[in-house]
Amino acid sequence: MHEPNSEGPLFGVVDVGGTKIVAGVATDGEILATTKIATDAIDGADAVTSRIATAIRDVQRQLSFESRALVGVGVSVPGPLDTTLGVVSFTPNLHWVDYPVATRLGAALEGVPVVIDDDGNCAGQGEAAFGAGIGYCHQVYLTISTGIGGAVIIDGRVHRGFRDAAGEVGHMTIVPGGPDCLCGNSGCLEAVASGTAIARRGRQLLIQEQSARLAALAGGDPDRVTAPMVFKAAAAGDALCELLLDDVATYLGLGLANIVHLLNPQAIILGGGVMEQGEVLLPRIDQRMRTHLFKVQREGLVVKRAALGDRSGLWGALQLVRRHVADLDRAAAAASVG
Amino acid sequence: MHEPNSEGPLFGVVDVGGTKIVAGVATDGEILATTKIATDAIDGADAVTSRIATAIRDVQRQLSFESRALVGVGVSVPGPLDTTLGVVSFTPNLHWVDYPVATRLGAALEGVPVVIDDDGNCAGQGEAAFGAGIGYCHQVYLTISTGIGGAVIIDGRVHRGFRDAAGEVGHMTIVPGGPDCLCGNSGCLEAVASGTAIARRGRQLLIQEQSARLAALAGGDPDRVTAPMVFKAAAAGDALCELLLDDVATYLGLGLANIVHLLNPQAIILGGGVMEQGEVLLPRIDQRMRTHLFKVQREGLVVKRAALGDRSGLWGALQLVRRHVADLDRAAAAASVG
Repeated sequence: MHEPNSEGPLFGVVDVGGTKIVAGVATDGEILATTKIATDAIDGADAVTSRIATAIRDVQRQLSFESRALVGVGVSVPGPLDTTLGVVSFTPNLHWVDYPVATRLGAALEGVPVVIDDDGNCAGQGEAAFGAGIGYCHQVYLTISTGIGGAVIIDGRVHRGFRDAAGEVGHMTIVPGGPDCLCGNSGCLEAVASGTAIARRGRQLLIQEQSARLAALAGGDPDRVTAPMVFKAAAAGDALCELLLDDVATYLGLGLANIVHLLNPQAIILGGGVMEQGEVLLPRIDQRMRTHLFKVQREGLVVKRAALGDRSGLWGALQLVRRHVADLDRAAAAASVG
Repeated sequence: MHEPNSEGPLFGVVDVGGTKIVAGVATDGEILATTKIATDAIDGADAVTSRIATAIRDVQRQLSFESRALVGVGVSVPGPLDTTLGVVSFTPNLHWVDYPVATRLGAALEGVPVVIDDDGNCAGQGEAAFGAGIGYCHQVYLTISTGIGGAVIIDGRVHRGFRDAAGEVGHMTIVPGGPDCLCGNSGCLEAVASGTAIARRGRQLLIQEQSARLAALAGGDPDRVTAPMVFKAAAAGDALCELLLDDVATYLGLGLANIVHLLNPQAIILGGGVMEQGEVLLPRIDQRMRTHLFKVQREGLVVKRAALGDRSGLWGALQLVRRHVADLDRAAAAASVG
């Protein structure tokens, strides 16, 4: 362990979630310290922003770095948003509507540049720069959790698309006419392979009295069935839970294959809660995916689990802000030469 | 019309097909003249390459430009291939296997740099730089013809992927468990929405005696049914042919929506034979696609037909080589400064 006293630039990093916020201070390649606070979105957006600023100042103080200026702050927020303007368009959990979080947080921190990106893109950038994706040129990140999100990384840079709405891997249609999705469509990858989808199908097994193991784990209450319980029942030999997870692997394999046909990435990184407990899923997803691919697409393609756990978003916020500051520096250097 | 006597650099451009080859000479922004020759692949790869070199020289002579050196040649070839090495891995139509076409053609033209790309990427680059895609940052090109191919353009540059195997839009699975595809999988977009797929389903209608109009157009012979006949029968009021084309629009809309969820492009350009006669398809494809998209993805998204017809590959070969030469020049300039 080296001492957190690097002389390089100091960044603020923030991961905003619906219930909690993690804020911290980082150097160019290391998150030095963090603090966790409740989001308490009910207080309003400005109050949340103010708490984030205070949290960053607290961490600076804790590191005895209160006199060192931050060169920038990176923020991971639930999308959709406008990265250019630094405005969050809409977040169901936070009740932010067209909220200019970058400007407001920058003002609360006395004019520090603030950059934002959505949680999927941040997690993908974090894994690409500091986690399981290090060294792969083109890669796609998926987080398989309550929902399914992701990020497309081309030549080491996140691809945000025309309106910051790329990487919506969870809403590719996988089963036309399949189960309804919260997005209003049906048969989306998220509707058949997320943690929520796994729990929903587990619940059906319990209601139809087809899984005694799941019934025992949930205390007989269908509403208490969770995805981890389905994994547990399958591991204990429950054939229908096993079949359910096999379907999930097939759907994910199909979704990944479609992505590979379009983008031919070098690596696919799978994160999120479902993958944390899903050692059983990864080899099957990989195998199903490969049956759909051309030889040249399969060769050298790596599918692996994310490495940074629930810290991927925070590392992504660091990657976001260090890249932004480097771009600003480069632009300033070019302007002074010209 | 201005005279073809620009003083700028002169490029060779080539579009290699299974039965014919178009070769020409171009300036930085204009194809000056072309010639068409038979491929006659049976003569062997080197003979074909030699004919291409002769064809380019012939066009130069025809323009009275025989004394002006070509600064580079761009070649569109059926993939798969390795753009870095300039090697065609395998082309069913040409019987080329691991054939170093760039090196061989360069040698036949006394050392001119030759760059290659596959036909889908070339057509997409041609449309992006000189055709329907001008002015859109991120765009996806699809050619809907005998098969379905395409290209992914990010920030104006074609995205080739890790192993030159991106843009395989025709082999995204659209109907799991659907009709067999030539690639060995089933339910691929190509298997349900290409000209071949349209003809196959038309043939079934004729065999099942469900379309008198189609039977009349094909002279009662199922084997003579083509995609244009299906369009013609539908236009004349044949309800089942109409339904067939409606399905095709639904499949294409679904495929495009999946692409948009992943990449959020600004434009989608649709080329190939099926689109040439498919005014009837475009509005429906567009409408079906939009039902699957988020508001922010729909806003500002343009879906339009390709503008360059069967010349898109040749224009793409020009874009390929002019960009390559510009990159070489930039690298040389950087080296001379450093």
